Amino acid sequence: MDFNTALSNDLNIRRKRLQEEMQRQGVDACILTTSVNVFYMVGAIYNGYFYLPSEGEAIHFIKRNIDFELEHTIHIRKPEQILEELQKAGLKCPQKILLEIDTLSFSDCDRLIASLKLQKENIVNASVLLRRLRSVKTDFELSQVRLCAKRHIEVYKQIPYIYKEGMTDLDLQFEIEFLMRKHGSLGIFRSYGANMDIYMGSLLVGENAESPSPFDFALGGKGGNSVLPLGACGEKIKKGNTIMVDMAGNYSPWMTDMTRVFSVGKISDLAYKAHAVSGEIHQTIVSQAKPGIACADLYNIAMDIVNRNGLDAYFMGTRQQAKFIGHGVGLEINEPPVLTPRSKELLETNIVFALEPKFVIPEVGAVGYENTYLVTDNGLENLTVLEENIIDLNNQ
Amino acid sequence: MDFNTALSNDLNIRRKRLQEEMQRQGVDACILTTSVNVFYMVGAIYNGYFYLPSEGEAIHFIKRNIDFELEHTIHIRKPEQILEELQKAGLKCPQKILLEIDTLSFSDCDRLIASLKLQKENIVNASVLLRRLRSVKTDFELSQVRLCAKRHIEVYKQIPYIYKEGMTDLDLQFEIEFLMRKHGSLGIFRSYGANMDIYMGSLLVGENAESPSPFDFALGGKGGNSVLPLGACGEKIKKGNTIMVDMAGNYSPWMTDMTRVFSVGKISDLAYKAHAVSGEIHQTIVSQAKPGIACADLYNIAMDIVNRNGLDAYFMGTRQQAKFIGHGVGLEINEPPVLTPRSKELLETNIVFALEPKFVIPEVGAVGYENTYLVTDNGLENLTVLEENIIDLNNQ
Repeated sequence: MDFNTALSNDLNIRRKRLQEEMQRQGVDACILTTSVNVFYMVGAIYNGYFYLPSEGEAIHFIKRNIDFELEHTIHIRKPEQILEELQKAGLKCPQKILLEIDTLSFSDCDRLIASLKLQKENIVNASVLLRRLRSVKTDFELSQVRLCAKRHIEVYKQIPYIYKEGMTDLDLQFEIEFLMRKHGSLGIFRSYGANMDIYMGSLLVGENAESPSPFDFALGGKGGNSVLPLGACGEKIKKGNTIMVDMAGNYSPWMTDMTRVFSVGKISDLAYKAHAVSGEIHQTIVSQAKPGIACADLYNIAMDIVNRNGLDAYFMGTRQQAKFIGHGVGLEINEPPVLTPRSKELLETNIVFALEPKFVIPEVGAVGYENTYLVTDNGLENLTVLEENIIDLNNQ
Repeated sequence: MDFNTALSNDLNIRRKRLQEEMQRQGVDACILTTSVNVFYMVGAIYNGYFYLPSEGEAIHFIKRNIDFELEHTIHIRKPEQILEELQKAGLKCPQKILLEIDTLSFSDCDRLIASLKLQKENIVNASVLLRRLRSVKTDFELSQVRLCAKRHIEVYKQIPYIYKEGMTDLDLQFEIEFLMRKHGSLGIFRSYGANMDIYMGSLLVGENAESPSPFDFALGGKGGNSVLPLGACGEKIKKGNTIMVDMAGNYSPWMTDMTRVFSVGKISDLAYKAHAVSGEIHQTIVSQAKPGIACADLYNIAMDIVNRNGLDAYFMGTRQQAKFIGHGVGLEINEPPVLTPRSKELLETNIVFALEPKFVIPEVGAVGYENTYLVTDNGLENLTVLEENIIDLNNQ
């Protein structure tokens, strides 16, 4: 089967799952307009509105020319024409509708609601539903995730060979970014939510790993400029430091997430121990996780191991500690489920998630590693298989 | 004066201008929470709410730890605490308020409105006001713009030396990105609006310049993957092609925008002519523009020159033609004013804007250039002074 046929079949599966949910919730239609959700439902991005009734074919209301083929396309200039066009086509006008209220701006959403003559109480949250649907991957999506993982691994393998003594954290990051691009990184790195500014990932060295950031990632870092307070800050990499590389796995639209740690010479015993505890958390979760297990239980498994080892003061940061140890990965880097103590989510077959139990050791840096796992019927499959121990760059 | 004192004085100027507008509009307070506007008002980014009453001092409602000093800080967990804290402090509860309704999500904005016990009719659009205030730069901001322009120019100067025969458009773009980072590019490249996905700028070669894109930039391009349909597409650069480089000027929080064109060998007469017409548009606008002139008039000046030269079929694209020739630049790459036929905006002293009259010539590529200009009391100052003719890479 060629790529286009496989994609077309897959789009039918995705739309059918959405329609089943709509029927279950008694919703008449869904309108999607943000890049990520349009891409998920169309396999391409256009400027317009993807309209899916609870039964029947999708309609593409297009505001700007496209140069690919699409069935059931209607050209419009403004959202007010959607209702007119539905009426003209003799189609039912939706009363209860799914809209992307968590991602559309207040103004755009308000205009869309008014243009469709809807009552606010008949708006259902499409952002949450689409994120939940997207969290369970199809075979087509999994083949894209595997392609991404392969390239992610290839790039990380080369890191020991591009490090040079005297580099700053930013120098090393620039070299990795260049390597990423030459290995097919698509550049764009999509994250979900209002406090998720980032550029191509995070590289944390030494005490910068302790700096809090306003953004909702696992760890912080001062950043190179006050306009992007996250990650590498331009300081020289020193002996006894760790270098935590958590750079974007954006080599296909469906991403992977992966962290590995390097050191410059020997680091403290505490840092080695914490890294080993991260490994114990991975192994324990891999041995216990399967479809049906609660994400909150996975979090608690990790915290038990952390507490038993007396490392809670360093877990997921020091001055600021993240309250999650993993998250779904897909078209956005932060998808459901989230592995938090209060999560109500359960693992399901074909969920892809990143597990990142990390520690920040003062004066040394961050340790611990991150893999992307696929939930199978039998347990977890690691998609990011690569040496997990800390690699000493002075021994390369 | 050191940087911190200069910044602190400048923040007072920016807040005072906002308060004057609030008083003029009879608004009691303004709440800002998106990164760009918080940065503009605070000089740093935090996770929380910047609260400015129409008179008196700003209050910072902070949700996540910060590691810099700020006066009048109140720690909160959720927006519902803002009103409680105002009451506790004996401050006036706002009735009429500025909120970022064009950028905040519907859900977040709706929650904020409810938490402040506000009526929808008492919400005023902070997104539009802040964008208008930000369009007129202070001296502090201008020094940042100049710093950015300097680095932008230095990178572009080196482009002829990194081109190699046989490269694809993406190969060349990766080299330019690497050069940009080594010259201080901050990576993050902020744009405003729902259809503005981009990564570090646009590089267009040959016929790819004709491809429409769903995103609202001046020109399109297929992109390297359907998840980012914009810009370079991975095709080999051929003899007779132009290479239009419009890469991000993100070397300081306040950006510059700049386009230059390179060719591989000679290109068609039509392409040289169109590039010269772009130059004529620049010169004519530079000779006529000054504070008080209407942006729509500048657009019309350009269109007259285009039509007189019979080049309207190629102007700002072929299969898709953008209806603007320039835009403000600042913390976001697309700020007001926009130079369109229907603009109601006038140029003002200290507006910084990019002028980009471009043509797409079938089988050749894009031509025309872009400078960032500062509006002074006497006219325009070009901030991006660098050779404007097409540079033949085969003659280097």
